[in-house]
Amino acid sequence: MSSTPDSAVREYVEQQSAAFLRDLTAWLRIPSVSADPERAADVRESAEWLAGRLRETGFPVVEVWETPGLPAVFAEWPAVDPDAPTVLVYGHHDVQPAARADGWASEPFEPVERDGRLYARGAADDKGQVFLHTLGVRAHLAATGRTAPAVHLKLIVEGEEESGSPHFPALLREHADRLACDAVVVSDTGMWDEDTPTVCTGMRGLTDCQIDLFGPDQDIHSGSFGGAVPNPATEAARLAAALHDEDRRVAVPGFYDGVAELAAHERALLAELPFDEKRWLRTAHSHAALGEAGYTVLERVWARPTAEVNGISGGYQGPGGKTIVPARAQLKLSFRLVAGQDPARVQQAVRAWAADRLPDGIRHEITFWGATRPCLTPLDHPALRSVVRSMERAFGQPVRYTREGGSGPAADLQDVLGAPVLFLGISVPSDGWHAPNEKVEVPLLSRGAEAAAYLWEDLAEQWGPAARG
Amino acid sequence: MSSTPDSAVREYVEQQSAAFLRDLTAWLRIPSVSADPERAADVRESAEWLAGRLRETGFPVVEVWETPGLPAVFAEWPAVDPDAPTVLVYGHHDVQPAARADGWASEPFEPVERDGRLYARGAADDKGQVFLHTLGVRAHLAATGRTAPAVHLKLIVEGEEESGSPHFPALLREHADRLACDAVVVSDTGMWDEDTPTVCTGMRGLTDCQIDLFGPDQDIHSGSFGGAVPNPATEAARLAAALHDEDRRVAVPGFYDGVAELAAHERALLAELPFDEKRWLRTAHSHAALGEAGYTVLERVWARPTAEVNGISGGYQGPGGKTIVPARAQLKLSFRLVAGQDPARVQQAVRAWAADRLPDGIRHEITFWGATRPCLTPLDHPALRSVVRSMERAFGQPVRYTREGGSGPAADLQDVLGAPVLFLGISVPSDGWHAPNEKVEVPLLSRGAEAAAYLWEDLAEQWGPAARG
Repeated sequence: MSSTPDSAVREYVEQQSAAFLRDLTAWLRIPSVSADPERAADVRESAEWLAGRLRETGFPVVEVWETPGLPAVFAEWPAVDPDAPTVLVYGHHDVQPAARADGWASEPFEPVERDGRLYARGAADDKGQVFLHTLGVRAHLAATGRTAPAVHLKLIVEGEEESGSPHFPALLREHADRLACDAVVVSDTGMWDEDTPTVCTGMRGLTDCQIDLFGPDQDIHSGSFGGAVPNPATEAARLAAALHDEDRRVAVPGFYDGVAELAAHERALLAELPFDEKRWLRTAHSHAALGEAGYTVLERVWARPTAEVNGISGGYQGPGGKTIVPARAQLKLSFRLVAGQDPARVQQAVRAWAADRLPDGIRHEITFWGATRPCLTPLDHPALRSVVRSMERAFGQPVRYTREGGSGPAADLQDVLGAPVLFLGISVPSDGWHAPNEKVEVPLLSRGAEAAAYLWEDLAEQWGPAARG
Repeated sequence: MSSTPDSAVREYVEQQSAAFLRDLTAWLRIPSVSADPERAADVRESAEWLAGRLRETGFPVVEVWETPGLPAVFAEWPAVDPDAPTVLVYGHHDVQPAARADGWASEPFEPVERDGRLYARGAADDKGQVFLHTLGVRAHLAATGRTAPAVHLKLIVEGEEESGSPHFPALLREHADRLACDAVVVSDTGMWDEDTPTVCTGMRGLTDCQIDLFGPDQDIHSGSFGGAVPNPATEAARLAAALHDEDRRVAVPGFYDGVAELAAHERALLAELPFDEKRWLRTAHSHAALGEAGYTVLERVWARPTAEVNGISGGYQGPGGKTIVPARAQLKLSFRLVAGQDPARVQQAVRAWAADRLPDGIRHEITFWGATRPCLTPLDHPALRSVVRSMERAFGQPVRYTREGGSGPAADLQDVLGAPVLFLGISVPSDGWHAPNEKVEVPLLSRGAEAAAYLWEDLAEQWGPAARG
């Protein structure tokens, strides 16, 4: 299948592992939290740091691209062969908020390696998975003796993914010519587990919002007025409760419009995975499964759209009681979307639903943070076959198929660039994305770098101009 | 009706008004917030301050009574006539929490007098209304030339009313012999408005609680796990939403068991009040009326039991979004109770309701803060007639009848001491109980002191041993 012995790639990756980890650790120390306006300078520093490392890796073109928000990093390394496929790797360098007090065993921005695991915010989501490409492309060159990659390689690493990528679609459109490619490789997803290499074929979309509810002009006495005026905390609760019906289906009218239902063979592929509910619950740090009636756990998180209350607040939260009707309340809601759903249509449905349900005397404001479209890759796409072969070489065993419950701007890449989206990810569910004590499995970073090294060669060999149509 | 000319009482009250206000202001500076454990020393100081002032007023017996929580103040001034009725005045010296940042125009514990109004936390609820009795009894003595009140006068001023009076029933039982009386006069309610003197005949009960809900052991990624595990913020919202049905009736099974329904003549009396919904809404700082179907606003707040969400919280509350399933959530709920309801039975109903509604995977804890029983005084009680006459003399016009939507330990006094409960209150709805910018109308403090002065004489004259049965 390939002209290069796998041992050459593996040997290079192992040799460089320590230096690779040292560099990654330096990057993880930069608290590039895009949701926190006070961390904007850190996100900027993170972009500059990455640009520097990509130049050292050998990319002849490296640029920091400004947006109205936080900057992205672009890099390009042309192939020698003008007919080689052009591949754009996508990742992000911003991270979720994190504070030691949330339950971290060590400081989230002071990386610690323990038992083959590297603990830090962003270790898996997504800095580790972006950074493995620096090692992957060097391994590819070292093993093949090339001076440039077998594919025309591009990288786009954005800085606002954890904030819903508000400026990413515009950035893509602005630079569509520079980003033009035959396929996108998204490295912002994961595998089934440490022992089960998998390839992801789809990713859910996302739109999230804040709903502010205003009742009395100030907190008022619940004895004197309670039970006779609308209470914004009660209405926030009623709204959040009305998100789901008794079957835990999303009850926002129009929410399911256009949803691509799962085909029988798709359900069968998902059912092949060695799913163990008890183990899954441990990974979820949860004590029971609960979701839309009629679907398995994996179908619920990968292939069904969902609505979630990310935050709710209103009224007195101090010690003891305070018998008031509060003046205001707030909901933070997020909606995961699947193929066939459009974020803008869902936002419209949520706006109409909220306005329709609130009584007189409760004023409300809805702010949507972002909109990420869902995407799904055909199972028989030739470039997807290359990813599958490369993962199988790196892991030495057959891969299975998953989808991704989380969201990324994969569909925007697909839409704007007109290219199919592939997924190359080595994170595992226990990595704790968005949670305290996020980590990445160090051996899997090496397998990922290997897979990338094989992939550039495989795509160049198996996906010539004719196959690309 | 009375042997003393009203002008003598009025003259004394006016002469002493400035000194009275100066002293009240000093008391209001003590931030006796019973709900805040860090303010325990202030509540204690408040009790000692009051005890000192009652001694100066002339009460021969003044004691600070300790409880397992915060102290109460007891005072006693025997009548000369051994057949005089014994009257126990009830009030409280603790106050609701307050912070400038909540929307106060001036510091809540730095009293300010503006346009005949005294602004401070506790000005109306309840220090002002307790303190008017020091002026009232002196006016009574000055006008009648007595050296002791015409009634055997007792005062009990507790320090935990704003925390649900958790230790008050036990305190009453412990000191039942010292507190023994023929009637209780509660000075912790109000009148219809500045121009409409009224006498309150009933007070709602209260029990309030905190429900903590625990889901995942830590915040988890809403993309990876959302929609497939129970979310404690969602469940808190569903619980709060399930408090009421679509008719805004309380939907906790058993909640209405035993409720004394309003009689036609009671509804007619309430309907006599000059109720103006627009004005009432302004007082409520609210923009619409909403409550139990089939009842008027006044019936809803005075004579119907209600459930209120005082606080709700869970998950992310910072800027922007955070796509998590939160680990925990919290509800603070309060229930107002009417005659026929028992707080212990309601607590049991709420416990059963909550346990019944929460899904597997959500652990919960309920903590009830306190239980205050409702009470209702017969409209034809002779001691109530004395209150009505005294208010009519103080205000120079007929009084109408109200009830009180708020709660106090009136029913505990009634139950433990076996005495009817009367209400003598001069606060008005615009006083802003439990809200920012609480105030008391200074002229009404004087009217209240006058009414108290008349009341002791009227009760002694009209409610002899024979009438008391």
